[in-house]
Amino acid sequence: MTFAATVLTLYPEMFPGPLGISLAGRALVEGRWALTPVHIRDFATDKHRTVDDTPAGGGAGMVLKVDILAAAIDHARALQPDAPILAMTPRGAPITQKRVRALAAGPGVTILCGRFEGFDERIFAGRQVEEVSVGDIVLSGGEPAALMLLDACIRLLPGVMGAPSSGSEESFEDGLLEYPHYTRPTEWEGRTIPEVLRSGDHAKIAAWRKARSVDDTRSRRPDLWERHSGARDQSASGARHNEGPGI
Amino acid sequence: MTFAATVLTLYPEMFPGPLGISLAGRALVEGRWALTPVHIRDFATDKHRTVDDTPAGGGAGMVLKVDILAAAIDHARALQPDAPILAMTPRGAPITQKRVRALAAGPGVTILCGRFEGFDERIFAGRQVEEVSVGDIVLSGGEPAALMLLDACIRLLPGVMGAPSSGSEESFEDGLLEYPHYTRPTEWEGRTIPEVLRSGDHAKIAAWRKARSVDDTRSRRPDLWERHSGARDQSASGARHNEGPGI
Repeated sequence: MTFAATVLTLYPEMFPGPLGISLAGRALVEGRWALTPVHIRDFATDKHRTVDDTPAGGGAGMVLKVDILAAAIDHARALQPDAPILAMTPRGAPITQKRVRALAAGPGVTILCGRFEGFDERIFAGRQVEEVSVGDIVLSGGEPAALMLLDACIRLLPGVMGAPSSGSEESFEDGLLEYPHYTRPTEWEGRTIPEVLRSGDHAKIAAWRKARSVDDTRSRRPDLWERHSGARDQSASGARHNEGPGI
Repeated sequence: MTFAATVLTLYPEMFPGPLGISLAGRALVEGRWALTPVHIRDFATDKHRTVDDTPAGGGAGMVLKVDILAAAIDHARALQPDAPILAMTPRGAPITQKRVRALAAGPGVTILCGRFEGFDERIFAGRQVEEVSVGDIVLSGGEPAALMLLDACIRLLPGVMGAPSSGSEESFEDGLLEYPHYTRPTEWEGRTIPEVLRSGDHAKIAAWRKARSVDDTRSRRPDLWERHSGARDQSASGARHNEGPGI
């Protein structure tokens, strides 16, 4: 099955961009995924091909018109009736690796990219569009976020990654950050590879990695750690509020 | 002053990619920012141009060699001594809009992109490289994340955005999500623009927007809301643990 990505954008020439190169590019050529950029401007109805208008209530910037967005979405939905439609917006729910995995296991995804001040809010309920965010920063448009989300999905498609086992021990897969990596040379500028990794003792190595994964998650991402330990100890009511690290 | 972006990558042909188009592309042509992709493989020392090796302690995938990375970083630092060096990795600290704003106000940024299993851990302390993450998902490499981070910086550079005031009322700038937007038509498929936005009463409009911003942050992003109210009420010790929404 080919994973079908449809991208609604004012800049179709940004796609495939970096996804036409390396792992994703090879997979595109091999037909493991397909890409259909759809130009939102093609659904404008006036002779100026207008897609935006000034914000109701005043303020800077321009807002993408709901009627034009709806027409573009209806076109995409006809192409791919089963694909979920995600809009990239900082107001959306943060995307998770779990969600990426679910998307990659499905028929594909339709991504709506905004520009200017954003979308007319009515489009989300009016066309069952899910608002997602890939990080707490503001972009010039949804396109770089769409490229990132697609990259995350494509690498999980069957046959795309060289070593299938690479996917199972990485960051976020079990709610923790991945452990750190080392490779030769054993000593570099006075810094050595931790001795346990050179011991050949697989049980010890696994234990060290697990401990580092836990330690690094606790110290670097107290938010992830709190969710991780909260999910584990759901019955220990309230415990995480007393024991959890401060944010 | 030109904002200088240096990107250390195994895929220099991915740059500028989408940043060569639209807002960022025009700013690149106008000299408001400059881009230097540096090919990590140019710093390999053997005839096979090897950049990676197997992980110490075993496991899937390959790890980028610390000596090669160091040589590439030393080259970049000589080009741009004052630019901070950021490595894109899911183990890093989540990037914030505040940090993006600080980067955009500086001389530029050097971004180190990983591939395969990641970097030899020793590079971070050995070369004062800061680990940052743009979202809790795993990519095929750091390149899509680098494009996203650069886009966020570039739009903030002087003269890049059309309306300078667009930047001050958007998501994350005050620790809250932005309020929703609407534009004509006033009625679409039975859905209307909220009446207050059509009232012409600027004080009422501002109050409505602020309230929506707060409400949406509380309901959509309890994590942001907790940080926001925690920062406001730092003296009200412990209060946020009792009143804060569950995660």
